[in-house]
Amino acid sequence: MSSQIGKNITVSIFGQSHSQAIGAVIDGLPAGFAVDMEKVRAFLARRAPGRAAYATARREADEPIILSGLAEGKTCGAPLAMLIGNGDTRSKDYEKLRDVPRPGHADFTANLRYGGFQDVRGGGHFSGRLTAPLCFAGAICLQMLEQRGVFVGAHIASVAGVADAPFDPVRVCPADLQAVSAKPFAVIDDAAGAAMQEKIAQAKADLDSVGGTIECAAVGFPAGIGDPMFDGLENRLAAALFGIPAVKGLEFGAGFAAAEMRGSQNNDPFLLEEGRVLTKTNHAGGILGGISTGMPLLFHLAFKPTPSIARAQDSVSLSRKKPEKLEITGRHDPCIVPRAVPVVEAAAAIVLLDALLGA
Amino acid sequence: MSSQIGKNITVSIFGQSHSQAIGAVIDGLPAGFAVDMEKVRAFLARRAPGRAAYATARREADEPIILSGLAEGKTCGAPLAMLIGNGDTRSKDYEKLRDVPRPGHADFTANLRYGGFQDVRGGGHFSGRLTAPLCFAGAICLQMLEQRGVFVGAHIASVAGVADAPFDPVRVCPADLQAVSAKPFAVIDDAAGAAMQEKIAQAKADLDSVGGTIECAAVGFPAGIGDPMFDGLENRLAAALFGIPAVKGLEFGAGFAAAEMRGSQNNDPFLLEEGRVLTKTNHAGGILGGISTGMPLLFHLAFKPTPSIARAQDSVSLSRKKPEKLEITGRHDPCIVPRAVPVVEAAAAIVLLDALLGA
Amino acid sequence: MSSQIGKNITVSIFGQSHSQAIGAVIDGLPAGFAVDMEKVRAFLARRAPGRAAYATARREADEPIILSGLAEGKTCGAPLAMLIGNGDTRSKDYEKLRDVPRPGHADFTANLRYGGFQDVRGGGHFSGRLTAPLCFAGAICLQMLEQRGVFVGAHIASVAGVADAPFDPVRVCPADLQAVSAKPFAVIDDAAGAAMQEKIAQAKADLDSVGGTIECAAVGFPAGIGDPMFDGLENRLAAALFGIPAVKGLEFGAGFAAAEMRGSQNNDPFLLEEGRVLTKTNHAGGILGGISTGMPLLFHLAFKPTPSIARAQDSVSLSRKKPEKLEITGRHDPCIVPRAVPVVEAAAAIVLLDALLGA
Amino acid sequence: MSSQIGKNITVSIFGQSHSQAIGAVIDGLPAGFAVDMEKVRAFLARRAPGRAAYATARREADEPIILSGLAEGKTCGAPLAMLIGNGDTRSKDYEKLRDVPRPGHADFTANLRYGGFQDVRGGGHFSGRLTAPLCFAGAICLQMLEQRGVFVGAHIASVAGVADAPFDPVRVCPADLQAVSAKPFAVIDDAAGAAMQEKIAQAKADLDSVGGTIECAAVGFPAGIGDPMFDGLENRLAAALFGIPAVKGLEFGAGFAAAEMRGSQNNDPFLLEEGRVLTKTNHAGGILGGISTGMPLLFHLAFKPTPSIARAQDSVSLSRKKPEKLEITGRHDPCIVPRAVPVVEAAAAIVLLDALLGA
Repeated sequence: MSSQIGKNITVSIFGQSHSQAIGAVIDGLPAGFAVDMEKVRAFLARRAPGRAAYATARREADEPIILSGLAEGKTCGAPLAMLIGNGDTRSKDYEKLRDVPRPGHADFTANLRYGGFQDVRGGGHFSGRLTAPLCFAGAICLQMLEQRGVFVGAHIASVAGVADAPFDPVRVCPADLQAVSAKPFAVIDDAAGAAMQEKIAQAKADLDSVGGTIECAAVGFPAGIGDPMFDGLENRLAAALFGIPAVKGLEFGAGFAAAEMRGSQNNDPFLLEEGRVLTKTNHAGGILGGISTGMPLLFHLAFKPTPSIARAQDSVSLSRKKPEKLEITGRHDPCIVPRAVPVVEAAAAIVLLDALLGA
Repeated sequence: MSSQIGKNITVSIFGQSHSQAIGAVIDGLPAGFAVDMEKVRAFLARRAPGRAAYATARREADEPIILSGLAEGKTCGAPLAMLIGNGDTRSKDYEKLRDVPRPGHADFTANLRYGGFQDVRGGGHFSGRLTAPLCFAGAICLQMLEQRGVFVGAHIASVAGVADAPFDPVRVCPADLQAVSAKPFAVIDDAAGAAMQEKIAQAKADLDSVGGTIECAAVGFPAGIGDPMFDGLENRLAAALFGIPAVKGLEFGAGFAAAEMRGSQNNDPFLLEEGRVLTKTNHAGGILGGISTGMPLLFHLAFKPTPSIARAQDSVSLSRKKPEKLEITGRHDPCIVPRAVPVVEAAAAIVLLDALLGA
Repeated sequence: MSSQIGKNITVSIFGQSHSQAIGAVIDGLPAGFAVDMEKVRAFLARRAPGRAAYATARREADEPIILSGLAEGKTCGAPLAMLIGNGDTRSKDYEKLRDVPRPGHADFTANLRYGGFQDVRGGGHFSGRLTAPLCFAGAICLQMLEQRGVFVGAHIASVAGVADAPFDPVRVCPADLQAVSAKPFAVIDDAAGAAMQEKIAQAKADLDSVGGTIECAAVGFPAGIGDPMFDGLENRLAAALFGIPAVKGLEFGAGFAAAEMRGSQNNDPFLLEEGRVLTKTNHAGGILGGISTGMPLLFHLAFKPTPSIARAQDSVSLSRKKPEKLEITGRHDPCIVPRAVPVVEAAAAIVLLDALLGA
Repeated sequence: MSSQIGKNITVSIFGQSHSQAIGAVIDGLPAGFAVDMEKVRAFLARRAPGRAAYATARREADEPIILSGLAEGKTCGAPLAMLIGNGDTRSKDYEKLRDVPRPGHADFTANLRYGGFQDVRGGGHFSGRLTAPLCFAGAICLQMLEQRGVFVGAHIASVAGVADAPFDPVRVCPADLQAVSAKPFAVIDDAAGAAMQEKIAQAKADLDSVGGTIECAAVGFPAGIGDPMFDGLENRLAAALFGIPAVKGLEFGAGFAAAEMRGSQNNDPFLLEEGRVLTKTNHAGGILGGISTGMPLLFHLAFKPTPSIARAQDSVSLSRKKPEKLEITGRHDPCIVPRAVPVVEAAAAIVLLDALLGA
């Protein structure tokens, strides 16, 4: 179904941007795990808006309320259900958008898909706000992965063409992941980060927005996990990651760069290190034939620039069948990439825990 | 499951490179459709090897044998099952690879996943040969899509960095798709195609291989098809396309280039043309919020260079736990991109027909 | 997943008997449907406890709170999420049951399945209380079915061997269904109903419980819906109905009685009535080959007697590995069959709407 | 999908009664298992026709041909695909049935479902012949279960009201199962078996048919396997078992008899035997809350009488919209219950192995 992901564990996301609440139901979690709610809150805070100049002014009290699935703080085998109330919303900002769809948004396609009955307020079910319950589910999965020695981390790889330093594809370690995720602006190279923030500020000043890319790594993921053909790690990660709003591209390991290499360059030679089989390079991004090699799992995601910009844009009136200028007055991030970093980690964590539990 | 794709129709692929047969079972096809077997054979011929200098010398008699699912040449509602016999195989070429995995192949990961019991001959279930039944299933879906006015076509977008001309993202039409698919080397710009073939020939002469990219378009796909979040067209296409061997990257519309644009550039303004709502540009690749806009669906795939190269490579002996030089003696394409073009069309067609039938 | 049902619509149930809340998420509902909340409440009231002598003394304020999925009272395409708060609970009643499992309950098996971390309070996720959100989901589906001319109704077919009159398998009509569901004790023959209530009162007086059967019918369900083999209406209904606590048997149409008939008796002859193809009898229960015939859909369910009885029972201490007498002190229905009637309707409605939407 | 079952392993059945072949694809089997093909053939022989007076005269050469999934006789992780050729078929017997549907068969419903394009020859995809590949898949699963100490066996519990002795619900052991399955007519009490065969012979002489019931047990299945609500063992078994042609009823443990018991009778008291927790009785059929108790799994199935009988029956001409007498001339079993015994074992084995692999 559309708002569900996973096979051994299933995460169902519900809510609209301005409905009474948003939330998630996670079915299939192993019983007996003590959830660290402080860590969950800290993780959710990483995607919360209103912290910096590059973020929307809208404030969200993303306090998760657990409805079920825990007994004395531990998972009990029953589905873990959670909600986050929707507080500070200005629904009237959106009413005029029902007839005049915003370019680059799902307004037009949702209107066709749901026959005009979609909830237009704040983007409805298509809102980036729905990534909050996704992050909640991911936070739980991240804790369970860490218990199994698997660490997932991401950073802003580029904004508006300004590139961060990459993870070392062979030697990236949990400490590297933690170092970058602890920063308020998640880059490895802070100078690059400053230049990115400058790009974002410029775009905002121009009533415009910018896109970027995120690199994500998983370290400690065991070798031999995954399946061939349509159920490989790449397929499963892709199915989840394209569920993050604004994602338009995904590559594993060398990705598109591999298409320009020769086999002798791109092939990762095998070697032995203290009895373990490793590869000298990691162009494969830790996945061969859909199955993990034991090297770091690595992928990049492309995010398009925030479609909501304050400039006037060309649209049409669907009812009157004529062109119409559109000016969007809501509050929007000039770049969603910084806040998307934990969302990427969350989506990856759900898929990786799901794969581990099925092994 | 690993070798299945689809929800309203399900395609199950079976076989190993050197098993008695490979094949597919397609469940859920609408009844009453007259399958054009000549067209199916012509489609399969596009991926068959042995036609050109850039392809492997191995000859495959890819004659599909229908086992069930048709009655008097028409689909009858029962699963459509098909097999292709495995004829010209030289199994002894592969025996030595069980212990010394080929870099860039699934030999090592399959060995872990299946505890050493995987079929190593010809790559087993991980072989590119399994794309033959995938193409069969795709050929059926393509015919059913054409009946519904939807046309899918792909071309070699680049080989080793040499780029073909792109499809016009707004105006690409069925005739454009047919023009390129009719060519023995599927490029729009034949001069670029000649340069690509030169690159492939050089790589072969150097006992090496090259990668490339493929662009695929679907024209006539109705607006309003798809679902939000994890079941959008991007998610579903991604889950299928990463099932094609050697695919390491995927982008929709502007993809990674969108990450360097501003919102004012990347947003596709809406306009009216003869009463239909269109977009002036198509950076979205015909998909917003997981749902089709009615514009051409567009995506690019990155293929890594063929991992099987004739040069000596560094590997390890898994049993003796020591480094070992590996020389691969089988017959392999120096570039699999040309033969992958119909495979991409097939995988896309399965997903798009599946989505249409669910609407 | 364990607490989910459906393919075109998916119902996910969450909660434990004594967690903060229980609820449901329904994904895939058609957009634009105006939910009649008064009718939903009236339906939920039919399974609510505390109304009669045969029901538990526990009072539940089963007021459903809609969290998302509606916009201006109509379904908007986003998942419909709902919760019911858990108010009047006496958790201490259950603490001693963690070590000494109740015969006939899931205490023992849950303990094994969840490693002792299951929520024992009130039966946790295995509680009959979880049928409240199931009824909510069913109430929505029933309304959508009625809009499509399909009516589902059930009655108490027997309690402790006392049988109600059956539905007419050929001529049962919506009015018949509504007549019985309007009654506080849902039987066709009120004299039989009085005798059943007498049986229940006797069992209660004896600190014991009784079981019974429920017959359910769906009228107006179109012919030609369903699929062969593992996805027929019988398979789908069975998968849902065995999810109702205490169900131990299911038969369609003549069911077990058909096993004692001859083919010449059991076969339903075809006939024409005003141009429609009907059957003279309906031993098939409206389903042949997994596909609806257009006749009323009919099935019976067997419910075991409530396992929670006030008498002392033989159990064991799991920790001390020795026999132990168990006395259950909570409040429990001496017969759950009367309250299960709307639950059966709900489960059937979910499956039938799901099947219709997929057709 | 309609012709698939399973989650951790998936069995896909294909074929029509008179298509070129029928077969199965089993995806997800553990690698490294040495399949005993002699045992598979012996199992298939148990459902093969033409062995006795009560069976159809049609002879089927049910020799399974393995297409893929084995390497050197062992499962290799790739899908195990198998076909059985369709040899001795008399297609002309069936042509007249397209317009005049047989009472009790799927002719009418298939005609609606597939718009008249269904394969009518021999019942097409709805034919009992499709249970041959199901038995093949079950035979593999039975071998894998035995390796894990789980044994599944069934017997004819009744024919036309003549009852066999039941399995001992508490003490049934593998030897009991093997004793009955080794018999040509699978009953525990041979005198009852003789009476059943007499009933079948009488029905045949009367140009009629009889139904019956089958009891199935699984011994050695570990405690604690299964899931609550919609994914319990009962739900999963039910979804598979109603896929067997002619099944109209299913009950676990005491089943419908439990509905007439009191709680004090039906509850199975816990006791300890050599440190293991057992139950004194087994009215639950080895399942509480959808999860196995460790006691024998037990269920009964009701089979309707063979709908194909040689007597003239009332039907209608679908094209001419008028009543029509129908005489069926093909060869049919007067009772399918004896041949259905291994089919029930096969379906149960698939579900139980699937559940074990997911644990």
